[in-house]
Amino acid sequence: MEGFIERYEQMPVREIWLLDIEEGKEKMDIVGKMAQRMWDASPYDVKVYRTLDRRKALMDADFVTTQFRVGQMNARIKDERIPFSYGLLGQETNGAGGIFKALRTIPVVLEIVEEMKELCPDAWLINFTNPSGMVTEAVIRYGKWDKVIGLCNVPISAMNKEYKLLGKETADLTYKFAGLNHFHWHRVFDTEGREVTGRIIENLYKGDAGMPKNVPEVPFYMEHLRNIGMIPCAYHRYYYRQEEMLKQGLEQYRSIGTRAEQVRDTEKQLFEEYRDEKINQKPEALSKRGGTHYSTAACETIVSLYCDKKSHMVVSTKNQGALPDLDPDCVVEVSAYISAAGPLPIFFGPLKPAERGWLQVMKNMELCVCEAAVTGDYGMVLQAFTLNPLIPSGETSRRVLDELMIAHKKYLPQFKGVVNQIEAKGITIKDDLSRN
Amino acid sequence: MEGFIERYEQMPVREIWLLDIEEGKEKMDIVGKMAQRMWDASPYDVKVYRTLDRRKALMDADFVTTQFRVGQMNARIKDERIPFSYGLLGQETNGAGGIFKALRTIPVVLEIVEEMKELCPDAWLINFTNPSGMVTEAVIRYGKWDKVIGLCNVPISAMNKEYKLLGKETADLTYKFAGLNHFHWHRVFDTEGREVTGRIIENLYKGDAGMPKNVPEVPFYMEHLRNIGMIPCAYHRYYYRQEEMLKQGLEQYRSIGTRAEQVRDTEKQLFEEYRDEKINQKPEALSKRGGTHYSTAACETIVSLYCDKKSHMVVSTKNQGALPDLDPDCVVEVSAYISAAGPLPIFFGPLKPAERGWLQVMKNMELCVCEAAVTGDYGMVLQAFTLNPLIPSGETSRRVLDELMIAHKKYLPQFKGVVNQIEAKGITIKDDLSRN
Amino acid sequence: MEGFIERYEQMPVREIWLLDIEEGKEKMDIVGKMAQRMWDASPYDVKVYRTLDRRKALMDADFVTTQFRVGQMNARIKDERIPFSYGLLGQETNGAGGIFKALRTIPVVLEIVEEMKELCPDAWLINFTNPSGMVTEAVIRYGKWDKVIGLCNVPISAMNKEYKLLGKETADLTYKFAGLNHFHWHRVFDTEGREVTGRIIENLYKGDAGMPKNVPEVPFYMEHLRNIGMIPCAYHRYYYRQEEMLKQGLEQYRSIGTRAEQVRDTEKQLFEEYRDEKINQKPEALSKRGGTHYSTAACETIVSLYCDKKSHMVVSTKNQGALPDLDPDCVVEVSAYISAAGPLPIFFGPLKPAERGWLQVMKNMELCVCEAAVTGDYGMVLQAFTLNPLIPSGETSRRVLDELMIAHKKYLPQFKGVVNQIEAKGITIKDDLSRN
Amino acid sequence: MEGFIERYEQMPVREIWLLDIEEGKEKMDIVGKMAQRMWDASPYDVKVYRTLDRRKALMDADFVTTQFRVGQMNARIKDERIPFSYGLLGQETNGAGGIFKALRTIPVVLEIVEEMKELCPDAWLINFTNPSGMVTEAVIRYGKWDKVIGLCNVPISAMNKEYKLLGKETADLTYKFAGLNHFHWHRVFDTEGREVTGRIIENLYKGDAGMPKNVPEVPFYMEHLRNIGMIPCAYHRYYYRQEEMLKQGLEQYRSIGTRAEQVRDTEKQLFEEYRDEKINQKPEALSKRGGTHYSTAACETIVSLYCDKKSHMVVSTKNQGALPDLDPDCVVEVSAYISAAGPLPIFFGPLKPAERGWLQVMKNMELCVCEAAVTGDYGMVLQAFTLNPLIPSGETSRRVLDELMIAHKKYLPQFKGVVNQIEAKGITIKDDLSRN
Repeated sequence: MEGFIERYEQMPVREIWLLDIEEGKEKMDIVGKMAQRMWDASPYDVKVYRTLDRRKALMDADFVTTQFRVGQMNARIKDERIPFSYGLLGQETNGAGGIFKALRTIPVVLEIVEEMKELCPDAWLINFTNPSGMVTEAVIRYGKWDKVIGLCNVPISAMNKEYKLLGKETADLTYKFAGLNHFHWHRVFDTEGREVTGRIIENLYKGDAGMPKNVPEVPFYMEHLRNIGMIPCAYHRYYYRQEEMLKQGLEQYRSIGTRAEQVRDTEKQLFEEYRDEKINQKPEALSKRGGTHYSTAACETIVSLYCDKKSHMVVSTKNQGALPDLDPDCVVEVSAYISAAGPLPIFFGPLKPAERGWLQVMKNMELCVCEAAVTGDYGMVLQAFTLNPLIPSGETSRRVLDELMIAHKKYLPQFKGVVNQIEAKGITIKDDLSRN
Repeated sequence: MEGFIERYEQMPVREIWLLDIEEGKEKMDIVGKMAQRMWDASPYDVKVYRTLDRRKALMDADFVTTQFRVGQMNARIKDERIPFSYGLLGQETNGAGGIFKALRTIPVVLEIVEEMKELCPDAWLINFTNPSGMVTEAVIRYGKWDKVIGLCNVPISAMNKEYKLLGKETADLTYKFAGLNHFHWHRVFDTEGREVTGRIIENLYKGDAGMPKNVPEVPFYMEHLRNIGMIPCAYHRYYYRQEEMLKQGLEQYRSIGTRAEQVRDTEKQLFEEYRDEKINQKPEALSKRGGTHYSTAACETIVSLYCDKKSHMVVSTKNQGALPDLDPDCVVEVSAYISAAGPLPIFFGPLKPAERGWLQVMKNMELCVCEAAVTGDYGMVLQAFTLNPLIPSGETSRRVLDELMIAHKKYLPQFKGVVNQIEAKGITIKDDLSRN
Repeated sequence: MEGFIERYEQMPVREIWLLDIEEGKEKMDIVGKMAQRMWDASPYDVKVYRTLDRRKALMDADFVTTQFRVGQMNARIKDERIPFSYGLLGQETNGAGGIFKALRTIPVVLEIVEEMKELCPDAWLINFTNPSGMVTEAVIRYGKWDKVIGLCNVPISAMNKEYKLLGKETADLTYKFAGLNHFHWHRVFDTEGREVTGRIIENLYKGDAGMPKNVPEVPFYMEHLRNIGMIPCAYHRYYYRQEEMLKQGLEQYRSIGTRAEQVRDTEKQLFEEYRDEKINQKPEALSKRGGTHYSTAACETIVSLYCDKKSHMVVSTKNQGALPDLDPDCVVEVSAYISAAGPLPIFFGPLKPAERGWLQVMKNMELCVCEAAVTGDYGMVLQAFTLNPLIPSGETSRRVLDELMIAHKKYLPQFKGVVNQIEAKGITIKDDLSRN
Repeated sequence: MEGFIERYEQMPVREIWLLDIEEGKEKMDIVGKMAQRMWDASPYDVKVYRTLDRRKALMDADFVTTQFRVGQMNARIKDERIPFSYGLLGQETNGAGGIFKALRTIPVVLEIVEEMKELCPDAWLINFTNPSGMVTEAVIRYGKWDKVIGLCNVPISAMNKEYKLLGKETADLTYKFAGLNHFHWHRVFDTEGREVTGRIIENLYKGDAGMPKNVPEVPFYMEHLRNIGMIPCAYHRYYYRQEEMLKQGLEQYRSIGTRAEQVRDTEKQLFEEYRDEKINQKPEALSKRGGTHYSTAACETIVSLYCDKKSHMVVSTKNQGALPDLDPDCVVEVSAYISAAGPLPIFFGPLKPAERGWLQVMKNMELCVCEAAVTGDYGMVLQAFTLNPLIPSGETSRRVLDELMIAHKKYLPQFKGVVNQIEAKGITIKDDLSRN
């Protein structure tokens, strides 16, 4: 809301429709009332609607934004706890958990796209739902819907911190990002066009820079960074310091609980605050939640589409040659200028062998997940697990796969037959999911 | 020798020069005398020379074959024991050990290539030295020598076993291999051109088929194979069943010793037999050593080059478009017809996402290793370790890297500065390498 | 027949079915009887059938060869005379005439392919019908039939003459062809693998070498050939010496008549000879007809498919990466080894800019023609005319297009509407086609 | 000047240096004084310097713009008259004349680039010198200078006329151009992102739209345009209506003189006006000269580089994947956003076969010309002539080549040996060049 209020002169919003499912009604009511209070405190006359009827919300929309969690926070807890219970990484968008989040989410997003074709065929879909890259890929590849942009707050967070390390103001630096969602690198240039990436590398990982709230702080190796010659994103720690990230995750799992469980508690507190009818500003506690800067990313993207502003944004969109090491048709997360006609990726050029290898293995792993999500093919999930660099192949990973399949069965209708076969083998969930 | 004797009518060999270093003189003498006895027992007049002078051996050669181990069997023991001592896979051509074997071997092969440019500029280099794919890549990319073919006995072993599973004679099947050395897949067709890969998959991994002696028997998952739709090579077990392969390796390491140590003992026995001057035939025990069919692969390749026979061989050679998912200039292991002008790879076509991802990550990992081998750049070795799917990144893998660097320092002159820095940190080798 | 008799031990033919349309019955009878006499004079028991029923001929065939002229020789006369009557080149496979030959032929070949899918789904289609490259392209692209090989006698003719210029025997040279049908270049190597292309260039175009009967002799410019560094095919004269080739053609058109008219007369004489029931050998006069070596090309290709001989043949087949400057899926004419699984193109590599430009413009022009042949789109024919390097765009070329459309309307059912519109404009054929 | 004055608030220019050679001193003085008067009449304090010393002009420049004619207007007269004297098209940037203009210009531009490396290594080179595409290609490919943008007024002229045909204001349409300099197509979209190209095609070529002054008016064929589905540029007439364009050119050549001769006269009149010291505004007559909108294109490009404005401009720049049918490294003319880091081409996507063929043949022809310009290789010029779609190959074209070589020998030092050989053959120039 804050973002739209600030940009109202550029884009005069008329109606905002909030949509949730029955289980989220209370949250939506709290947020919706709070949102209406924010507009009412502004000079602008905007109405915030709330509905549980998706068709009503989509009807004649100009922009549709999606951010939801199929199976709610409980599902995320399973994505994290089940792998950890076998000594594998449990994380929301990486490894086994990320794969299952995609398997649950993609079918629902594709349903929404089908309804958009009918109810608001000219609208843009702005997706925040994680795993944002795979969701965007699926919308384009299987939904055959090109007017989609995947957003994430990781790049904007990095940009908002790095310049300080050089004693610069933001406006003094330009950024070039490329890679995949939660798996990109970037280079930085000063106003004269000279690359300052190396200087940032020397400074960056000394302090607390660019780390999302849900990524523990394990520094990259300097020899590694120098060889890369680009700045990895915070999530790269899972791949570049696999051992330590796993260890930290396991320690949390065994003591204070996984990230999902921590977030659940923060959210509770947050909604208590939102409920206070005197509040008509964004609460402080929100910044602890993670996901800061989402508002900026979202509003600026939408306004740039609306006004043909050509703002520089880092978005999940069709490659279109920006990363020549991948197919031009697949979805990447890159620096792009957002015009009225959509995002135009900025050419990044070929990567060196190591980064090319990472990029290609991760993208192909994503393609396996997307295909599995629409076909319900167990062998394809197994392929994705085997190819995923964070999952050592073999019996344990297969057990984790099978338990996740059972745990999420309510939200995996496409795998009905597969689930039946797994259950017939007598496989049950080892972890006491309700423990924490 | 056996192979050349059988093919003498196609290719009338005149001289065979054996070359070794001082430490291998005794072995060379035993093998050389044995070889001469084999020729003497044949109808053909061929002289087998033995020398320690590489320039003499190379002078005016038509074919140069290389098969050596820099640092001898002791180096392999280190490649295997040091990773195992930290719970990582220790293996000759995969993981950390394979990377260090490449780092030691590539500089020596490049030296040989430089001498060939001077002493036998029209000769073909037939390389068996492992890791055969990376060595071939380095010879072409950094040695700028195109007349090289990398050979391996894994494909020929597979072909020699699979047909039995269909109740077929060899001649009844045609094979199409593609991938990388120790990392290829293949498809099989009957005489009518109909694919029988699926039928072999259903039969193959039930029994003992296509398993090299140095790969423990862990079956692939059938759901996985069916999704792949191609037959993986035996070494794929390290990637498709990582957990079990590591576990088996660790058990051996802790009990009977690593594969290197077992081979060392077999070789001792073998050379005892070779020494017997009455023997003028290939000894039985050789087949236990592993590396069977090397003779067939080597002799048939050389004769096909000599006679323009266009034999179908599976070789490491320049891609040339056969695998469109990789650069046309990089080295792959593929089915090829061997003509007088060299191997012509048979077009294999694009792979599906999962196999494409594997192929690309492995090839790029190889490129990092080759580059590190010629530049001596620590950061690049770190990149190769991090990208390698069998090495979890982090402190343990870095420790293994550092210990291997010290352990092999005599054979890694390009890393002199790196070794000094590691030693300055007081890092020493934990494993008692002489234990077994 | 001669070719099959010579190769009978390799491929024991049982039945040969000749097929023609009503208008060709007499010719077929003469040829068929002659063919039966040739077999009867051989030691082999083979029956030559004659039929006008295409389905009977196709039923259970192992190999189908097609060589026909839609509209018979009269159509070719139109293809040649109409362009010449406006001062444009009139030629059977190049320029306006070649385009219209393709427009008439492709629909008929696609009909045959549809019947093959039903009556002999495992057969190979060996096509000689010109323009052979475009016909092969259409069979694969629009007929969705991959088991097709396009043949032409131009490459084999070149190979049969060039070696003499070096004082060599054929077997001493190896050839690498690449390009398109009637538009390829080649390189030549001696037994040591050393390129001798340059030496042939210096000698070749001094004498009478490699010129098909239907291409007038105009020498290439030596400066041009040296810059190309490859040997162009005889038909390249139309593109590299456009002015002179057009002039010669116009002179013939105005005096002795076009090539089609000359061939018509040779054929008459030939069939008189064939009719002689005492003759059971290939008549001398045949070599004047042009098209020599077709027999060798055809029989060797078929036998190599049958026996998996991997003979080197120059064929129209899918590119598969051999010419990286074109799409891997489009049809090119290249050196290939013919195996039981079909032709495997030999990698030729990227061309230099001039040849790359020629190759790409010609291939794309062919693709326009193929598309026009199946869609009947006038604009697409106009595009092909405009892009064709032998047709200057504008009113004259458009008039030629329109007259050819009317002249061939009987054989261009897909252009029915187009023809009606042209006729409605009152356009008639200027040339007195029956003059000669 | 007008453009910089209008944009002074965005980019506060301090100094403008005009540079000419001795022969152009008078013109430079006239223009320079006029320019100073224009600034003096503005509120801004800018000094216009004039010099014949190139090093002085380049020293510390931020932007260097080049627009010159090697050999002055006399050379253009030769480029036009010599081909016409043999019945071939004589034109400044197309056909034989365009090739020779490039051969003369490229060495001089490369000299300037070498001096820029020394004297103003951070400057951008904005090139207007024709043939602008080939000059830009040579600067990047052979000068190894990436900070270059090629400009042309053809696209901006089209944009300034087309919208009227739809009854629209400019701001209502967005344009996507792609191709090569003087050989591009474009598509047009309305504010809702709906393509209106087809509607413009139906209207455009009815009236006088988008035709540069130096291109005679011959309409495209509607069937052709509809099949293309894009709007060709005015220069496409030379290729799409070759016959008529040649005919019109020949008529002018034989009557009022070539375009060069007409321009020479206009310029004389123009400079008379400029000389008038009372004038401090752009004279009316300038718009007759052709080349209108150059000012807008140049100033907007420079200001956009300076301010990171991301203006949409159509420029010659590195392809970077925008046209996947060409190499990513070659120069194309495309819609791009001009940022501080240079132009970012807007992805255009693959072309259909006909346009792909045209694009590829023209680009490769350009590459031959650029290579010939730096190597001085006669065979390569012959290749460019042969490949050029406007030059029928053979004796006449070769004669034209030789005459142009002699006529321009003073400005072709790289072809000294070639010129000697041609002169040794006694070749002289047929046309009485001074006639008009």
